Amino acid sequence: MTRLLWQKPGVQVDERIQHFCAGDDVILDREFFLFDIQASRAHAQGLQLIGILDADELAGIERELTALAADFSAGSFVLDETFEDGHSAIEARLIERLGDAGRKIHTGRSRNDQVLVATRLWLKDRLSRLHALCRESAEVALARAEVEATLPLPGYTHLQRAVVSSAGMWWSAWAEAFIDDAVRARDTLAWVDANPLGSAAGYGVNLPLAREHTTAALGFGRMQVSATYAQLSRGKFEMAAIDALSSAMLDLRRLAWDLSLFTSAEFGFVALPAQYTTGSSIMPNKRNPDVIELMRASYASVAAGRTEVEQLLSLPSGYHRDLQFTKGAIFHAFGRGLGALELLPDLLRNLEWKPDAMRAALDSSMYATDLAVDLAREGMPFRDAYRQAADPARWEQGDADASLAARVSPGAAGDLRLDVLRERLGPGS
Amino acid sequence: MTRLLWQKPGVQVDERIQHFCAGDDVILDREFFLFDIQASRAHAQGLQLIGILDADELAGIERELTALAADFSAGSFVLDETFEDGHSAIEARLIERLGDAGRKIHTGRSRNDQVLVATRLWLKDRLSRLHALCRESAEVALARAEVEATLPLPGYTHLQRAVVSSAGMWWSAWAEAFIDDAVRARDTLAWVDANPLGSAAGYGVNLPLAREHTTAALGFGRMQVSATYAQLSRGKFEMAAIDALSSAMLDLRRLAWDLSLFTSAEFGFVALPAQYTTGSSIMPNKRNPDVIELMRASYASVAAGRTEVEQLLSLPSGYHRDLQFTKGAIFHAFGRGLGALELLPDLLRNLEWKPDAMRAALDSSMYATDLAVDLAREGMPFRDAYRQAADPARWEQGDADASLAARVSPGAAGDLRLDVLRERLGPGS
Amino acid sequence: MTRLLWQKPGVQVDERIQHFCAGDDVILDREFFLFDIQASRAHAQGLQLIGILDADELAGIERELTALAADFSAGSFVLDETFEDGHSAIEARLIERLGDAGRKIHTGRSRNDQVLVATRLWLKDRLSRLHALCRESAEVALARAEVEATLPLPGYTHLQRAVVSSAGMWWSAWAEAFIDDAVRARDTLAWVDANPLGSAAGYGVNLPLAREHTTAALGFGRMQVSATYAQLSRGKFEMAAIDALSSAMLDLRRLAWDLSLFTSAEFGFVALPAQYTTGSSIMPNKRNPDVIELMRASYASVAAGRTEVEQLLSLPSGYHRDLQFTKGAIFHAFGRGLGALELLPDLLRNLEWKPDAMRAALDSSMYATDLAVDLAREGMPFRDAYRQAADPARWEQGDADASLAARVSPGAAGDLRLDVLRERLGPGS
Amino acid sequence: MTRLLWQKPGVQVDERIQHFCAGDDVILDREFFLFDIQASRAHAQGLQLIGILDADELAGIERELTALAADFSAGSFVLDETFEDGHSAIEARLIERLGDAGRKIHTGRSRNDQVLVATRLWLKDRLSRLHALCRESAEVALARAEVEATLPLPGYTHLQRAVVSSAGMWWSAWAEAFIDDAVRARDTLAWVDANPLGSAAGYGVNLPLAREHTTAALGFGRMQVSATYAQLSRGKFEMAAIDALSSAMLDLRRLAWDLSLFTSAEFGFVALPAQYTTGSSIMPNKRNPDVIELMRASYASVAAGRTEVEQLLSLPSGYHRDLQFTKGAIFHAFGRGLGALELLPDLLRNLEWKPDAMRAALDSSMYATDLAVDLAREGMPFRDAYRQAADPARWEQGDADASLAARVSPGAAGDLRLDVLRERLGPGS
Repeated sequence: MTRLLWQKPGVQVDERIQHFCAGDDVILDREFFLFDIQASRAHAQGLQLIGILDADELAGIERELTALAADFSAGSFVLDETFEDGHSAIEARLIERLGDAGRKIHTGRSRNDQVLVATRLWLKDRLSRLHALCRESAEVALARAEVEATLPLPGYTHLQRAVVSSAGMWWSAWAEAFIDDAVRARDTLAWVDANPLGSAAGYGVNLPLAREHTTAALGFGRMQVSATYAQLSRGKFEMAAIDALSSAMLDLRRLAWDLSLFTSAEFGFVALPAQYTTGSSIMPNKRNPDVIELMRASYASVAAGRTEVEQLLSLPSGYHRDLQFTKGAIFHAFGRGLGALELLPDLLRNLEWKPDAMRAALDSSMYATDLAVDLAREGMPFRDAYRQAADPARWEQGDADASLAARVSPGAAGDLRLDVLRERLGPGS
Repeated sequence: MTRLLWQKPGVQVDERIQHFCAGDDVILDREFFLFDIQASRAHAQGLQLIGILDADELAGIERELTALAADFSAGSFVLDETFEDGHSAIEARLIERLGDAGRKIHTGRSRNDQVLVATRLWLKDRLSRLHALCRESAEVALARAEVEATLPLPGYTHLQRAVVSSAGMWWSAWAEAFIDDAVRARDTLAWVDANPLGSAAGYGVNLPLAREHTTAALGFGRMQVSATYAQLSRGKFEMAAIDALSSAMLDLRRLAWDLSLFTSAEFGFVALPAQYTTGSSIMPNKRNPDVIELMRASYASVAAGRTEVEQLLSLPSGYHRDLQFTKGAIFHAFGRGLGALELLPDLLRNLEWKPDAMRAALDSSMYATDLAVDLAREGMPFRDAYRQAADPARWEQGDADASLAARVSPGAAGDLRLDVLRERLGPGS
Repeated sequence: MTRLLWQKPGVQVDERIQHFCAGDDVILDREFFLFDIQASRAHAQGLQLIGILDADELAGIERELTALAADFSAGSFVLDETFEDGHSAIEARLIERLGDAGRKIHTGRSRNDQVLVATRLWLKDRLSRLHALCRESAEVALARAEVEATLPLPGYTHLQRAVVSSAGMWWSAWAEAFIDDAVRARDTLAWVDANPLGSAAGYGVNLPLAREHTTAALGFGRMQVSATYAQLSRGKFEMAAIDALSSAMLDLRRLAWDLSLFTSAEFGFVALPAQYTTGSSIMPNKRNPDVIELMRASYASVAAGRTEVEQLLSLPSGYHRDLQFTKGAIFHAFGRGLGALELLPDLLRNLEWKPDAMRAALDSSMYATDLAVDLAREGMPFRDAYRQAADPARWEQGDADASLAARVSPGAAGDLRLDVLRERLGPGS
Repeated sequence: MTRLLWQKPGVQVDERIQHFCAGDDVILDREFFLFDIQASRAHAQGLQLIGILDADELAGIERELTALAADFSAGSFVLDETFEDGHSAIEARLIERLGDAGRKIHTGRSRNDQVLVATRLWLKDRLSRLHALCRESAEVALARAEVEATLPLPGYTHLQRAVVSSAGMWWSAWAEAFIDDAVRARDTLAWVDANPLGSAAGYGVNLPLAREHTTAALGFGRMQVSATYAQLSRGKFEMAAIDALSSAMLDLRRLAWDLSLFTSAEFGFVALPAQYTTGSSIMPNKRNPDVIELMRASYASVAAGRTEVEQLLSLPSGYHRDLQFTKGAIFHAFGRGLGALELLPDLLRNLEWKPDAMRAALDSSMYATDLAVDLAREGMPFRDAYRQAADPARWEQGDADASLAARVSPGAAGDLRLDVLRERLGPGS
């Protein structure tokens, strides 16, 4: 049976209701637990600075928090349904070990700002990982763009053959995509980097809490000033983090689509190493690219997490229990999203082009646009050149390499400008 | 390490990739496991009918499936990461216990139709529960509508006081809402009640599978005919089921909103029994209606499940691994959704009106519409009557009971027509 | 300047606020206008039945409503920003033409139930059209399934070549898909077929409104009983209608994906008549299948409409102005959705297979599953047969026609059971 | 009949198909038209720099573009269904007026990059407006926070009375909310501020286009380098812009919820000027706060726009016609979203508190938390203090002003730190 520190005597407990309210909340809190301990330490330090705890009490609390974190990491402390949530588990442990010092830890704090600060630290951690993975993916793409700059690849619009493109153009596109995603992850990280600890239940407390101290001790970029806004940011900051993740995942979805097509027998442009494929339970002949399909599918889970948060946020200001469901949503979104992105750099490193198939798919119609522009360069109005080049009788098989070399508009195959992309990406961290 | 029945020799396995592909899939399959066993039994019977299995082999398989179900239910068989998924766990167990008979169970079957049929049985089970809960909620509402038909309650539009309403009107509204939701659950159940087993990987097999038998044995209303459509219905039927759930959950969300307002000090129309409320970690004075807030919030999880399925369904026909993520989505949606609805009938039974507060909120302006209509009944054009009744000087405190009694338009307080609703609800099951 | 029939004197009007509140509402009301007139006629008849209008007044009103509908259809009456909305436009016209009789039309009615009934009639009309289009698409698919039953087509899973399939299987899949969608449209139509007129502002009125009459006169299947529930169904019924539309549109999205691939040079299985393609502004060689891309994309607009309604429905009971935004949402969803479906039957009739390309894509691996099952039929345990058939040395080019003929599991190429589908579809209307 | 510049001769045109493909596209292009003209001017200048146009031709084009913009603004040029889209309308006009010079304008350009650059300029314009409106709203909130810093207001959690709060806390919360939203709008503006013009159909052209020139001439912060990524960013950048808008709109939704409650008779804390309210068609007594309800509802339209874009983006790389539907989506989202935000600063300026009602709602329980913290400050462990303060016998009516003055945790009523917020907001533009 769950222990409730603030349960009022005499209230009859309904097992089903309590189960519904608790849900899997305490299990979810495992994700937050080390961050909650970290924030509890900073809070205790702050309480000592304003005289609520003496030096000995603080030392005891810090020692026990360190031990609890170690026990949790080692598996000797298990956060389970015997606790209402992670927050009360920490308080209960301190009381059990320290008595009155433990009974003081919650002074000037509410579970409201406790979960806010743990969430904030967690989001920062995940956005930092998102940033690193986008950077790494961009780096791989840039490196391959350089090596494979001149490898011809059919270029499509509407899935119809359009013009000659190149592996270099394909790689540099994804490089720039993930650079943008990295920038967005970094911007979002800075945006959410604000300390809500010390806002209590949204109205502050009658104590001069040392919020500057906790802000610095927890490595936050700024204090989230308004105690009431701290509550209003619940869900809002989660959404922003998921938005940043979504940006990368949408790119991954489109990249996976390319690979899904390119690994089909019909396109046949890409081979995946065997470990990226799986068999069928009934069809002995199959090697399926499940990994890229699940990468593509992972966007769905990120979108689901966003929906779950978004649907909760039609509320007046102030805390409402509805907001509890934001937790599982971000775990699901980032769990699936980062899980897919973790595999991306290696996938990009390992996929192999099949140059013969790529060249074989370049038919004569794909040089018609070059022809029209050539005529235009020689002085014919483009609209007339277009009409002449539209005549299939004028199409002839071109030289793919020459076509790519002549594609000199900035950012095209003849002038990829990888240096500009590399500069925007910046030095590795 | 997961055992793969169809792993080809010589393929190097990447631990991270395999982990990504497996995800929590086998854990999720616990939800399906008994249905999968049930469908495997029907499939085995069908194989015997067409001569693939002999009577002894079938007897052995049926015995072992029964034992496996019992072991699973008792906890002595645990479906965990040592299996790729629930489907292969069943096959592996049969092979282990029965040898060649076990090696025959997958004849004419793919994991594709295996998961389809398990999902279908699961959806039917949940829709049936949804139907029952909507019915029960409607019954409670009808019963209270009858008892409290004449209890005055302020009626609002735009959260502004509008006209006198009654507890009877409030209850009968929710009754009709949940009757509609029950009808929709029943319609949806009939719509998805089609047997996909025997469609294999979407293209059938070169065996005269006994699909009529499995359809009857599993209690399906019809066979899902086209083997290729069976695959196309993956996700589509899940969406339909979630749509039906959403309908009830949207009503629950609005009901919870009413209760959230009515239990505030400012409205003060409803008291919840203490077991529906919880305390605060910092504010000693609080009793918060967390249950109704979490009921309101549960729609978000249902919506998230729908989003997750929907986002996956931009695909060509045929199976794609993306579809694996539909599983977790329906478990999350129905887990949270039915979890909230399970508590609803008792909540409706137990909530208490505070009649004094309700009457106190009936101010004189709330009789102005009655007045306008009275004038219109006496012959004054309504638009003129409206203008006269808009003059606050003409407003006077009315008699709430008389106002309700006179509200005789069908479906209003003076003529609730609960009998019509009761007839549509039909006899209890 | 908009004329407000119920504007109170002395209230200062802010042009920007009024513009924001009105939005494009009156323009949107054009969609509803004829239904609003139709419902106003029924309402007037009801008022005469209970003595609010005399026979002459009713005759005048009916005459003027007929004239207004004619003027609107002819374009001589334009519903524009000079009216607050369509509802007040009707009332204003009747007052202008009839004086006091016009001033009586709004007796016992609110714009709340007025918009509800117009919306309901509109939804019924659109669901009926949805039903007809799904039926027609299914009929075309069934007819082509019959004719092209034995035409070999590669069957894919994971976009990888799997087994031999057929045009017959492909067509029958879509036939069953659209039959299901038709059934759902019909079920949904029956579910929303309830008359809200007479519920006034959600609390009824102190008049014995002739709701049985209006229900019958407007062709509704039943009365929506509870006046308060009528308001609660605002948005809920719109969602249900969009859900039914979504079901068909998800199928259309997947069908369009198939065609998008099949019309690519790499697959090359399908040719579209020229009128289904368009050119490029820069690339003279292109003929792009824009129609099928826009069909695929139309799901997005349906989903957007659903989101817009869904996001509004986190509200307490009673009318709130938020609900006004449900109008544009359903117009957008059904406008785009039905717009795409209108073109589907002809597209299905007109697309041409390219049999040579289809046969050329059938490679020897695609017979391996047949082989495994053949071995199993001869007595080898399937799991062993699978392993033998997985050896590429055993794969040999098969006979596609024989493979299809032998695929006799019900619902597969050798036993399509089109008669069962045809029976479920029922006779044409 | 629409004129198609690149229509191939001999293609039979199907009116219905063409209508479906065109949709309302050309009407939507009115939003982009001036930006398209602006970008066409930069493109023409670039063509002159690389010798495709001579100085006279450029002068003619610039003159005619200026004239076209003027005609469009004046209404003497109407962009309607006689054109396929805005892009071809510009080209057609130049050809009509200039002949061959006009026929040259599309050299090295595709409608693909043409719509990309027009969209990009439009998004920058709207994000800039979003930024300004968030700033202005924050400024109003800060100003009122200062003036009304000490005005007591009940503080709620779970809609239950919690502790004494203040108008100052309420205002500063919204100030910080909209400061964050302004920062996000600014960050997003910088992120999307990249020039796609010169990427042609996603593969560049065989011309050394002067992309540095067009980037500078159009005021972009950087060039979007990769021609292929420019296409991949279609929809992605739109989503990011809508995400930034959503952030502000979610705050507006919660603010509107507060006002919806506060203007109810039951709360009664806020009065809105009469121009913010409207009447009812049936209830003469009503004054409804429609404006704040529509503000709350506007989030739904923003979410709908986001859904519409998101649903389109499950595609391989390269242009697909699906992407056309991103246009209407952003117009709807920003139209409704900015429309609501435009009214916000004045609403915040004009709303009036009702101090008596606010003080009357402060009951004795709301001082219990203060009491617990007071006991804790004096040395009692908080958990013990909490238990003592939970005894209703100990609750007594406190002094609201003193309670607020003592709430000295940073960001609470006694230490609002408006200066920190003001500094983050920065100087007015």
